Amino acid sequence: MNKLLVQDTWVDGRNVDILVEGNRISRIAPNIPAEGLETLDGMGRAAIPSFFNGHTHAAMTLFRGFADDMPLQPWLTQKIWPNEAKLTREDIYWGTKLACLEMIKSGTTCFMDMYYHYREVARAVCEMGMRAVLSAVLFDGLDPARTAECQRGVEKLYEEMYAYSPRIRFSLGPHAIYTVSGALLQWAHRFAERHNLLIHLHLAETEKEVEDCRRNFGTTPVRYLYQLGVLSPRLVLAHAIHVDADEIRMLADHHVKVVHNPASNLKLASGYRFPFDEMRAAGVTVALGTDGCASSNNLDIREAMKLASLVGKVWRGDPTATPIESVFESATRAGAKITGWDIGRVEEGALADFCLVDTDRAAFTPNYNFLSNLVYAADSSCVNTVVCDGKVLMREWEVSGEREIIDNAKRLSGKFS
Amino acid sequence: MNKLLVQDTWVDGRNVDILVEGNRISRIAPNIPAEGLETLDGMGRAAIPSFFNGHTHAAMTLFRGFADDMPLQPWLTQKIWPNEAKLTREDIYWGTKLACLEMIKSGTTCFMDMYYHYREVARAVCEMGMRAVLSAVLFDGLDPARTAECQRGVEKLYEEMYAYSPRIRFSLGPHAIYTVSGALLQWAHRFAERHNLLIHLHLAETEKEVEDCRRNFGTTPVRYLYQLGVLSPRLVLAHAIHVDADEIRMLADHHVKVVHNPASNLKLASGYRFPFDEMRAAGVTVALGTDGCASSNNLDIREAMKLASLVGKVWRGDPTATPIESVFESATRAGAKITGWDIGRVEEGALADFCLVDTDRAAFTPNYNFLSNLVYAADSSCVNTVVCDGKVLMREWEVSGEREIIDNAKRLSGKFS
Repeated sequence: MNKLLVQDTWVDGRNVDILVEGNRISRIAPNIPAEGLETLDGMGRAAIPSFFNGHTHAAMTLFRGFADDMPLQPWLTQKIWPNEAKLTREDIYWGTKLACLEMIKSGTTCFMDMYYHYREVARAVCEMGMRAVLSAVLFDGLDPARTAECQRGVEKLYEEMYAYSPRIRFSLGPHAIYTVSGALLQWAHRFAERHNLLIHLHLAETEKEVEDCRRNFGTTPVRYLYQLGVLSPRLVLAHAIHVDADEIRMLADHHVKVVHNPASNLKLASGYRFPFDEMRAAGVTVALGTDGCASSNNLDIREAMKLASLVGKVWRGDPTATPIESVFESATRAGAKITGWDIGRVEEGALADFCLVDTDRAAFTPNYNFLSNLVYAADSSCVNTVVCDGKVLMREWEVSGEREIIDNAKRLSGKFS
Repeated sequence: MNKLLVQDTWVDGRNVDILVEGNRISRIAPNIPAEGLETLDGMGRAAIPSFFNGHTHAAMTLFRGFADDMPLQPWLTQKIWPNEAKLTREDIYWGTKLACLEMIKSGTTCFMDMYYHYREVARAVCEMGMRAVLSAVLFDGLDPARTAECQRGVEKLYEEMYAYSPRIRFSLGPHAIYTVSGALLQWAHRFAERHNLLIHLHLAETEKEVEDCRRNFGTTPVRYLYQLGVLSPRLVLAHAIHVDADEIRMLADHHVKVVHNPASNLKLASGYRFPFDEMRAAGVTVALGTDGCASSNNLDIREAMKLASLVGKVWRGDPTATPIESVFESATRAGAKITGWDIGRVEEGALADFCLVDTDRAAFTPNYNFLSNLVYAADSSCVNTVVCDGKVLMREWEVSGEREIIDNAKRLSGKFS
């Protein structure tokens, strides 16, 4: 059995060792005998749960910095769509690996992805040692003639991929209510119920989406989903910025999950009044996400904590809003509540998914409040070591295969313009 | 004469060497002979101007993470003021050194400071090799009995310190219009004129300040300064969030400079509608600042670029607002316009104040647009090497004296609570 010992680290204020057996944390205590074990040096480092990125399009890392500071329509029609059409399976594979590299480097070990070419994405994630909820794309363009074809495609992919790896959960990814018909959303709801799957859906990202929803369906986005009968604990909504108090109540009642993507929401000017505190108060599980690198440029969940907290305070005019502990919970434990994996805690019995954070640096000096320094002062280079499923993915800032990934991504990026 | 050669680096799209002679860049060209010269490896790295931090309180780094997510009044009265009263000269010296360490690590070589104990601050900055505009505090509490005493204190400090180091510029730091009388502001204006000094003033940081100004002086903050006759090219305003279009015009007409502190403005919930684009369009020089670590927790100007850009887009609902180039200029060239030092450009003849940025990493892959990656994707750990005034302050992520600074800051932080 795989065994690993972290020595002399700091967990919630205690100096301890962490023993990993198999893919779980089996013991947290001082002075665990190291004999015969692989060890990690935890001195001057804090062990924290590794981060969960609730919404991204990993392979789009190949489009990082490709088209910034543009209005939405020319950005989509002139830059993103023509270049997405050029993406090969090799691009998807290396683009996803680049995304995984970047996530591991910044302490994320589990993410929810939405993109084409499921098989290549799954292969890349699996090889990188991470955990992910990958979604089969559903997109019928509101065209009834395409709905059945979408369903068959997903059924086929599910049969092939549902048991691909214990670190990968198959899910459904209907793109959005303006690209996926109500009939297909209802089919996805039933399919997900039957096979115990999550559904990953963009919703209420922009004011325009809400206006269009009112015009086309006569109501607001969450109410539209309610009327379709597809609100459920399986549903994970990305964005959900433009929702009212009653809609928050509906999300809470149906145990719908939400992923807040502050960087993307700010950079695309989608909206800043995300009701983070209000959703949490209503009992909604809110995770953090980065969105894809085409829109928000990196996959840094530590940064997402800071952005969510700072913007959450200022739009309310209240410096006590969106406090440290709440964004940290969204970046860690919320991942467990959404995926069902026992992650997001460094405790005996939990899955061994954690980071060591280097506190022997300026950003953690003084260290009156470790979480404050992590959220408000540090950057992600404080993440020194990353463990997922009991395996070391990064040791002393080094990830195996990094050189090859960067070289391949650079090589492949040449054809996009 | 001090000579230094950066080999095989990237400057504005060209692969070149950079020759430093004395404290200036003397030549930028391919294949400069290295014989007998100290060299820096620029391969896989981009040379950029080092950053300018237009507003901080360096020694307050000792209060990092000390009291977060609190309303302003209890934060000041229960946490900041009682602990500021405990600060010794040793605290100021090591607190400032910690701030300098953090700034160097994140690529900043020049800053504007406002704090007590000028002499210890100057000594720390000088030893760290940085450039700074340090201000003599003016604070009469609007009490006419204290005004003359303040003036004498500043005159004495000026006589002693004005020629302390060519890397330090003496300036005046009247705290704010609610703590400094109009008479003292006018005296500072004349003193600065006579001795060719900058004046560093907090202004229009909160809506409450504007309301109080209306009540006490019958007008808004910038108009109040105008009526006092103290608007001038020497005046540098920190914050200036709550100003109207006419006030922006007045700032432009009088060549007043502004420092935007996005992290602090967000975290303290001071305001997010900072008119960055409007001020620039009117011709106002706008620099970026971090404010002190008691409020914004770090001194990271690269992060300030991202925050300024993202928030600038979202409050306007316009993804083309506050673009990359404008925030980069604010983080670099604006420092030259404010201080008069020939910094903020990597060009022949300029002062040798620059960084090497490691582009051989995930955040810069792909590298379609270097500045986009720097502003939106990277974190400050991409800064690999820092040169100021022709001297190497950081080489391959190592700053001389780092261990001693962190240990002393940790030791001294024990007495604050």
